[in-house]
Amino acid sequence: MLVYLFTDVGASPRELQILLREACDESLNCMSIDGDTSTNDTVLLLASGRSGVRVGARAKDVRVRKKFSAALTAVCQSLAEQIVSDGEGVQHVIRLSVEQARGREEALLVARTIAHSMLVKTAWAGADPNWGRILAAVGRCGVPIDPSRVQIFIGRQKVCGNGVAWVFNERQAHRSLAQPVCDIRVQLGRGQESVRFLTTDLTAEYVRINADYST
Amino acid sequence: MLVYLFTDVGASPRELQILLREACDESLNCMSIDGDTSTNDTVLLLASGRSGVRVGARAKDVRVRKKFSAALTAVCQSLAEQIVSDGEGVQHVIRLSVEQARGREEALLVARTIAHSMLVKTAWAGADPNWGRILAAVGRCGVPIDPSRVQIFIGRQKVCGNGVAWVFNERQAHRSLAQPVCDIRVQLGRGQESVRFLTTDLTAEYVRINADYST
Repeated sequence: MLVYLFTDVGASPRELQILLREACDESLNCMSIDGDTSTNDTVLLLASGRSGVRVGARAKDVRVRKKFSAALTAVCQSLAEQIVSDGEGVQHVIRLSVEQARGREEALLVARTIAHSMLVKTAWAGADPNWGRILAAVGRCGVPIDPSRVQIFIGRQKVCGNGVAWVFNERQAHRSLAQPVCDIRVQLGRGQESVRFLTTDLTAEYVRINADYST
Repeated sequence: MLVYLFTDVGASPRELQILLREACDESLNCMSIDGDTSTNDTVLLLASGRSGVRVGARAKDVRVRKKFSAALTAVCQSLAEQIVSDGEGVQHVIRLSVEQARGREEALLVARTIAHSMLVKTAWAGADPNWGRILAAVGRCGVPIDPSRVQIFIGRQKVCGNGVAWVFNERQAHRSLAQPVCDIRVQLGRGQESVRFLTTDLTAEYVRINADYST
């Protein structure tokens, strides 16, 4: 991944670094196709200052800074979604929200364990609303979760309530998962922290592409 | 996984627990197909004492205890290999050895990261001697590895020496990986600890079985 971002606002390298880090933590640092990583992932933000608008710590108007920060985050989120949807063999992008964690690291650990579970990812490939596999991944991630406090939503429907089966419309849940992009929400009942993590299904096409790749 | 082991030797429950734990740590606790876990994995060892041969701490002959321990480990290792080779869509079993780690936890972390990497597993499905994917998995596992001290072997051949490409017979390496069982060895150059970890490739058939599974 090589991301180059250009803007004509003005800010010091240090100020830009802070803005970029915040934007990436909401986007490019919260996505994964298969858990494997590249050795040369790079994000650069270059600001010319030509517009005369300052967005750094010395910016006169804090609203301008906030507006720029929101725009930068939106660009990074759009790029993240484009990268993920362009993944090898990807048929479904999942916008995974992990909510009610004790802290950000905990929320990320839960999100990554779900997002990298081969059983969860193959269920998504089949548009199968198999919430048991999601709950099993949450259960093995290392965080001392109380299953009776866990809620899971697929699209707009709750499919698991207090750690057990919830009455839901399976056809509707299947339809939600069959879309190119589907929202899945997992509430842990432990705290206030949330993360939004972009990931994908695991398809037979992914295996074909990567098994046939020649060294 | 439900494993029941029966023997006619004599030992206390506590003595059996120690023997069983040692045997499992060399076998059933060192295997993984896809990284997902079951909620009801169980291993039980029952001893009747009928033979009159004691193998516990109070055993008269330490050689008898060692012999029983070795036999128990061999049985558990055979079961582990049978379970792994019976995994969904598995075409190749990999006997992964991680050597020269600082400690057992470190060796296990490296082994699990390699064993659960989708890029590594799909390369194995294609019998592709792609050592770069193995090295990349080692590099992202969290242990501060010095790549220039890493050696990787496929079958009997060294394929990566001091972290860089080694001259090897690619056809021979491909043939080794095309066998039902293949040995892969990774040396970290950090310490004295080793683990042997049983794992598998990731095939399109695995995806089909688990994507078509109905809730």
